[in-house]
Amino acid sequence: MKDEKHDSLVIRPAQEADVSLLAEFIRGIAEYEKLLDQVVADETILRESFFGSRPSAEALIVEWGGKPAGFAVFFENFSTFMGRSGLYLEDLYVKPEYRRKGIGKALLAHLAKIAVQRGCPRFEWVALDWNKNAIDLYEKWGAKQLTEWRIFRLSGANLAKLAGAGY
Amino acid sequence: MKDEKHDSLVIRPAQEADVSLLAEFIRGIAEYEKLLDQVVADETILRESFFGSRPSAEALIVEWGGKPAGFAVFFENFSTFMGRSGLYLEDLYVKPEYRRKGIGKALLAHLAKIAVQRGCPRFEWVALDWNKNAIDLYEKWGAKQLTEWRIFRLSGANLAKLAGAGY
Repeated sequence: MKDEKHDSLVIRPAQEADVSLLAEFIRGIAEYEKLLDQVVADETILRESFFGSRPSAEALIVEWGGKPAGFAVFFENFSTFMGRSGLYLEDLYVKPEYRRKGIGKALLAHLAKIAVQRGCPRFEWVALDWNKNAIDLYEKWGAKQLTEWRIFRLSGANLAKLAGAGY
Repeated sequence: MKDEKHDSLVIRPAQEADVSLLAEFIRGIAEYEKLLDQVVADETILRESFFGSRPSAEALIVEWGGKPAGFAVFFENFSTFMGRSGLYLEDLYVKPEYRRKGIGKALLAHLAKIAVQRGCPRFEWVALDWNKNAIDLYEKWGAKQLTEWRIFRLSGANLAKLAGAGY
């Protein structure tokens, strides 16, 4: 059983030929989160961001029995105190029909391995505070929740307004 | 008064000659946060991270009356839904003697301008949930608090353990 499972799972870096698959996965996440109207990314944008002259993120594709089952998007962030990059997992998605097979943990473990290989002292991501099942797993795997920190986001008209503020 | 203030303030990109200043500022933050024992970054590490062949972050220096008064460290993160980079402010520090002059807002406005110039749809940062004064200002400037999101961090022995987990 272990061998059968092991044979079924392949995690590989996404390549340019995967752009339509990435777009499909991103719409999959958005649909699941009921945020499809917020998706701006299309194949042209993704091709440039992942495979252009100056990539801004990387992706992993996970295949199960030879078929695409999910993906992860990540990039390198930076810690001032460490003075160096960490690995940041931006998104992880496993198709509904491939869930409960340990694919999510396999992706996280793979990313942890990449972090160690690259000398990144930290591997970080975010989760929704009501997603108890996920949080329990993350803590079981040794992740610490930075309970006091809150994320702030400026966009659209408010971003333009602050950008135009004189001193 | 306005003109005098305006003349006093200069915000410029950090250069390699600023490495010792960056190290001093980082220790300043850490001291203020009583986290000096967590600082690993030294001048050698910072030189490589900011000015090496593949920089992992950028910094701004703010000068008041020709003297270094503070700094900001930022990098580009990535939004899957947008399919493109946003600007992420990792750290901002103003020396105690230069506070209450609007320097923090000037740095944020400068970064918002960089975000707009680079076509970044979002400008993000984090704050401690008990830092009400800062949060009130951020919200006044139009930033939205992503109240439901929590940050998770894996490092040290726990990172190595997950990296070594087989499927």
